Amino acid sequence: MDNFNFYSPTEFVFGKDRASEAGSYVKKYGGSKVLIHYGGGSAVRSGLIGVVKKSLDEAGIAHCELGGVQPNPRDTLVYKGIEMCRNEGVDLILAVGGGSVIDSSKAIAIGVPYDGDFWDLYCGKAPEKALPVATVLTIAAAGSEGSGNSVITKEDGMLKRGTGSDLMRPRFSIMDPALTRSLPAYQTACGATDIMAHVFERYFTNTKEVEITDRLCESVLLTMVKETPRVIADPDNYDARANIMWAGMVAHNNICGVGRQQDWNSHGLEHELSGLYDVAHGAGLAVIMPSWMEYVHGHNVMRFCQMATRVFGCQMNYEDPESTALEGIHRFRAFLHSIGMPINFAELGAKEEDIPELVRKIGVGTGRRGGFVELGADDITAIYKIAAHASL
Amino acid sequence: MDNFNFYSPTEFVFGKDRASEAGSYVKKYGGSKVLIHYGGGSAVRSGLIGVVKKSLDEAGIAHCELGGVQPNPRDTLVYKGIEMCRNEGVDLILAVGGGSVIDSSKAIAIGVPYDGDFWDLYCGKAPEKALPVATVLTIAAAGSEGSGNSVITKEDGMLKRGTGSDLMRPRFSIMDPALTRSLPAYQTACGATDIMAHVFERYFTNTKEVEITDRLCESVLLTMVKETPRVIADPDNYDARANIMWAGMVAHNNICGVGRQQDWNSHGLEHELSGLYDVAHGAGLAVIMPSWMEYVHGHNVMRFCQMATRVFGCQMNYEDPESTALEGIHRFRAFLHSIGMPINFAELGAKEEDIPELVRKIGVGTGRRGGFVELGADDITAIYKIAAHASL
Repeated sequence: MDNFNFYSPTEFVFGKDRASEAGSYVKKYGGSKVLIHYGGGSAVRSGLIGVVKKSLDEAGIAHCELGGVQPNPRDTLVYKGIEMCRNEGVDLILAVGGGSVIDSSKAIAIGVPYDGDFWDLYCGKAPEKALPVATVLTIAAAGSEGSGNSVITKEDGMLKRGTGSDLMRPRFSIMDPALTRSLPAYQTACGATDIMAHVFERYFTNTKEVEITDRLCESVLLTMVKETPRVIADPDNYDARANIMWAGMVAHNNICGVGRQQDWNSHGLEHELSGLYDVAHGAGLAVIMPSWMEYVHGHNVMRFCQMATRVFGCQMNYEDPESTALEGIHRFRAFLHSIGMPINFAELGAKEEDIPELVRKIGVGTGRRGGFVELGADDITAIYKIAAHASL
Repeated sequence: MDNFNFYSPTEFVFGKDRASEAGSYVKKYGGSKVLIHYGGGSAVRSGLIGVVKKSLDEAGIAHCELGGVQPNPRDTLVYKGIEMCRNEGVDLILAVGGGSVIDSSKAIAIGVPYDGDFWDLYCGKAPEKALPVATVLTIAAAGSEGSGNSVITKEDGMLKRGTGSDLMRPRFSIMDPALTRSLPAYQTACGATDIMAHVFERYFTNTKEVEITDRLCESVLLTMVKETPRVIADPDNYDARANIMWAGMVAHNNICGVGRQQDWNSHGLEHELSGLYDVAHGAGLAVIMPSWMEYVHGHNVMRFCQMATRVFGCQMNYEDPESTALEGIHRFRAFLHSIGMPINFAELGAKEEDIPELVRKIGVGTGRRGGFVELGADDITAIYKIAAHASL
């Protein structure tokens, strides 16, 4: 096990009807003027924004609002948010939405006290200050409610870049599983895929002797394998949604990833797909991740056997371990297909002829050096090709 | 799943040679005058206290010290610590030791700003303020390095009482697994038992649909089943110690217990044993916990089957589930025996004729109402009797 620091100071406020407590938590964490940041109209139409505003009013907290965050959140709205916070004297940003809204809020939070262009902070410069961020989560997926990470897309060139700092960890996150009930099945499944991918990026490691984090990773994966089909079949199943929502936080606040090298190449490869085609991140991951697994499994067959037996219930073939590893990967892809995810380029809406362009773009960005297997341009091309033609 | 809040703001500083960073973390968390609180002479003899002092000196942090914390830490030393902190103007308490030292530090921390007798805060009154506490952990066991709990023994009558508040959660905890290498095997095994007990107290619940926390509980238990025999056989196995140390934190910062009723009756029953005989908490738990399981297993046979199959690798007997439940309990007791723990009163040094006295004392204290099964005096007597005569 490697040395590490683990710090997850967010107060998680979990359960039914907790959004009406937003005002008292803002007060507890010292906010007096809040920017309510959200996405499309659904948070307004569902009445959630109204509940949050009422709660802020009751607690005597002033507020302004900025909606319009898109999936794969854009730099253009971040600039607008930064300006708004400065003009209005905002001292806490309340993200009401999913990962995109939270990531946009985090970008605004580090942008407000920064003198230059906030995009610098997504190109290697470390943030030094941030406004406090809090969240009211509406989709189980990105884990941004408990993480110090944010990913923003620069509209000019559709470049997707991420940054991370403990400064961006939310002060509190309100997580009501009932808020996710109205999500379309496709979005629920995209979220579930994202959660599983966050674990797999940590699970495939070259660090030895990390039993506790291996087992924690498998806890989340086993939960997702059990609960996801239940919510797809029955969107009103509160308990299944609750298990998924909490698993989504556990998957990404890094309790599953400490003390070990992590990979993150699949995220790198996916970012270029969602950058180019504006597809949902989870859908892109469903196409990429099993393809990446197929390509790299030879690097450590036994680790894939561990996944296959512990997570996907395969019987270990002791005479031919590789067949077990491949069976596990096959079952993962079949699982993704069963919950309605695309598993190849055609189903995703991506084109094989764009592969050189995808590879060219990834060349200038992050994501090439995985903690499990380092990938060169030829490797990345090969993985995209597997993804282009994948089938069950 | 029940509604819950989860808040674990401690910064965990984990790995080899981290104790020398104590000074910089005290500085980061605003301490300028530190009370170094520790137990017997081993922390001094090993040189650890010297390392910590040097680190504080280098960071320009003033310090005083108070050693002498005993296992099952006493109120008498807490009074002394409170007086010392007030006289010296201490603004951060640094516990260098295990659960007893940390619990004593927490008691001092809430006692200093409290006007009355700190014992009130262990008899139902909630603490409202506390000095910040930080830790340098030397044994994997109590989980106090990541929890907001503290248990203190009142010397007059040897009454053991606990309290809990987020105010007592450590600001930072330095966890170097190498510091646990010199522990005698017996203490290592006591610690491992305590860790498993912290999980089982949460695992046995009447709350339905808590798959994610069930799986997280099982992660810790599976890790302990794998790693404990390895450190008993090879005390210098750093990686096994690292997995156990981190598992000990995960077992008790409540990530394994949120959203569900918890039991805690075994702890209640054990507290009277260690109160009366001054035995190690883990050793008392090794005698009590499997006996409690035997007594209550009929309350939910399937939950014990889940433990048996998922944690102890039993084959499910679908024609006779109860036999699987009992086999799981048997394997747990055999595991405890294999790591050198006592499994009955004689091995522990307790006496069957004291059972009425144990039952009488527990009657006036905490621990009767379990979240899994509520116990009356007759039930408690029966469990102590099973514990008195248990064998493999």
